[in-house]
Amino acid sequence: MRPAIITLTTDFGLGGPYVAAVKGVLLERAPGVQLVDVCHTISPQNILEGGFVLANIVDVFPEGTVHLAVVDPGVGTERRLLACSVARQWFVLPDNGLITGVTRHHPPDEIRELTSPSIRREFVSATFHGRDILAPAAAHLALGRPAEELGPLRSKFITLRNFEPTADEEGFVGEVIFKDTFGNLITNIHVDRLGDAPGDSWKVEIAGERIAGIVRTYGDCPAGTLVALSGGSGWIEVAVVNGDAGRLLTAGPGTTVRLRREG
Amino acid sequence: MRPAIITLTTDFGLGGPYVAAVKGVLLERAPGVQLVDVCHTISPQNILEGGFVLANIVDVFPEGTVHLAVVDPGVGTERRLLACSVARQWFVLPDNGLITGVTRHHPPDEIRELTSPSIRREFVSATFHGRDILAPAAAHLALGRPAEELGPLRSKFITLRNFEPTADEEGFVGEVIFKDTFGNLITNIHVDRLGDAPGDSWKVEIAGERIAGIVRTYGDCPAGTLVALSGGSGWIEVAVVNGDAGRLLTAGPGTTVRLRREG
Amino acid sequence: MRPAIITLTTDFGLGGPYVAAVKGVLLERAPGVQLVDVCHTISPQNILEGGFVLANIVDVFPEGTVHLAVVDPGVGTERRLLACSVARQWFVLPDNGLITGVTRHHPPDEIRELTSPSIRREFVSATFHGRDILAPAAAHLALGRPAEELGPLRSKFITLRNFEPTADEEGFVGEVIFKDTFGNLITNIHVDRLGDAPGDSWKVEIAGERIAGIVRTYGDCPAGTLVALSGGSGWIEVAVVNGDAGRLLTAGPGTTVRLRREG
Repeated sequence: MRPAIITLTTDFGLGGPYVAAVKGVLLERAPGVQLVDVCHTISPQNILEGGFVLANIVDVFPEGTVHLAVVDPGVGTERRLLACSVARQWFVLPDNGLITGVTRHHPPDEIRELTSPSIRREFVSATFHGRDILAPAAAHLALGRPAEELGPLRSKFITLRNFEPTADEEGFVGEVIFKDTFGNLITNIHVDRLGDAPGDSWKVEIAGERIAGIVRTYGDCPAGTLVALSGGSGWIEVAVVNGDAGRLLTAGPGTTVRLRREG
Repeated sequence: MRPAIITLTTDFGLGGPYVAAVKGVLLERAPGVQLVDVCHTISPQNILEGGFVLANIVDVFPEGTVHLAVVDPGVGTERRLLACSVARQWFVLPDNGLITGVTRHHPPDEIRELTSPSIRREFVSATFHGRDILAPAAAHLALGRPAEELGPLRSKFITLRNFEPTADEEGFVGEVIFKDTFGNLITNIHVDRLGDAPGDSWKVEIAGERIAGIVRTYGDCPAGTLVALSGGSGWIEVAVVNGDAGRLLTAGPGTTVRLRREG
Repeated sequence: MRPAIITLTTDFGLGGPYVAAVKGVLLERAPGVQLVDVCHTISPQNILEGGFVLANIVDVFPEGTVHLAVVDPGVGTERRLLACSVARQWFVLPDNGLITGVTRHHPPDEIRELTSPSIRREFVSATFHGRDILAPAAAHLALGRPAEELGPLRSKFITLRNFEPTADEEGFVGEVIFKDTFGNLITNIHVDRLGDAPGDSWKVEIAGERIAGIVRTYGDCPAGTLVALSGGSGWIEVAVVNGDAGRLLTAGPGTTVRLRREG
């Protein structure tokens, strides 16, 4: 039988005891659960980046996986905490837009607000709800216990507008959403927005540069070439073959990117 | 049945093969044990920081957990290696003060010095005792084997004096012990030292700034406010609401912090 | 029974969804497999560093372990992907020299080229073969399925020449292959190349400095001393006792190191 899986995505950073404290609560409550670190270096309180990471894992994890995500600038205020069932997986997170990318293709089947006083740690701190409320809820779901025990059904959830580019008659205006370790600039423009137009009918503008066409892979061009391509998860990205596009263009998250269809 | 858990806390950093070499030894000797990375970015040879991390996980992990911790500036010298039973968990580490925070509330029930030549790797290197001595001992305990086989009972262990603040008639003089990824400055002054005096009866002094009162949470004040609060594990910390206190105050580990009770 | 183990070594960095996407595929296809992060901070596309990491874990992991390694500057070009059986473990990786260090003591028993169209994800991207081809192959092997289903037998594989030093009549000329978090400079000169000559018969030259003799451990010399020693896995390394050799010598990967036998 497949053991239950809980993944963790946070902006806690890699130093300190915070991630481990969450893991301890999960293992205490759900013995034998398989823990998977997704990413703990989300830029502090960057919900858009956290949402991008989650959007890229929903299609690879098995059914039943519970994803615990904590990027939570509103901790200690009145923001809601949710468990959302999407694509037969659970996402346990604050209701601040973190779920946006996950719901691009899969609307939630069920949303619960985490209000149950019994599915929390006995002492709930004012600043560490990841450990004290979200982790017990994730453990509860990983154990296969009823979602209805977590709290009432909800139908609404917050989504981020800048997770999608703006469409106009010429194409799209979006932004860089993530710079990876190679300096590739991943945008919020997904290839599924581009329709049937061939790659070479697009022009990409970023940081004063124009790139003609969207190529298939890095290997199609000589080293040092600035290229636009559709990356491994379908997001349009700007890269330098065997180089660092972020450094070359002095660009990163937030940089505007335009796609225009050529005549 | 709950699988055995071994956690790892080191200053090995995230690059290189060192952490994985320890994990390989653990998995070779304790098949199926559940490994949990706590933190590998302890500042090199910073025992105080390592001790802070351990202090914050002892209350969340289940009974029987084995915590392997390696911050070991004395490797290759005559320092002792210990297994300490605290709060029904085992801590396997050098006897250099790393255990200090763990024993704040829980005195050790049993201390063994790791002298047994049979519970080591066949070839013990001069510089990698984490892999060659501590890991085999941790695997031994995770398998539920008798602690007495590790070596003789000991009653003493080294503790760090600066893990606790100094008390005087006005309050406490302590220091920043950890700066987290958000720039929050966590001090070595625990709320359990403050007695029943209400939060607003305290004044906090750090880096030339005075903060009136200890608040409940970040959300109580407008963005940009410099606040002192009791953090998620009870340590007094200095933070900027939605900001970075470390950067604002040019402060970090070692910075002096004073708490004074007002009139 | 021992659960199957898959380790992961990549240059993906710690940010973003890439490592987790690989893990999701592994867990989907090999339920219950034990995942071990070795290192994800290999310098981008640095095959030599990746090879060094793998060389240091082959002797500690149990038989049957599957090591998935992705440092793959040639993704999207015609480079081959391989599964190599070495020392009763599997290494699943691009054929670009990553395997070099692993085969220092253990020649491969079996090499398969990963050509089978059925042991891949349904949609294979042009830029993420770690997720789409290597991960399914690693899961296949972790499940104990026949290696022959992966693709045809091969006898050749690429090795890196600069993984070994050059020998001359005076000794060896090598290079720094890894700088660890303490600033220790690990070279590509393994103690097994030095024969029976005692440590104090060697002179080490690096960055204009001369070090007399190879010592046993850091603890043999006073703090601040520049020393050469045989590290925990047998590579000659240059260190400053309780200090940072990389900073002191302004040296790092690629710096030339000479060992000369005296008189």
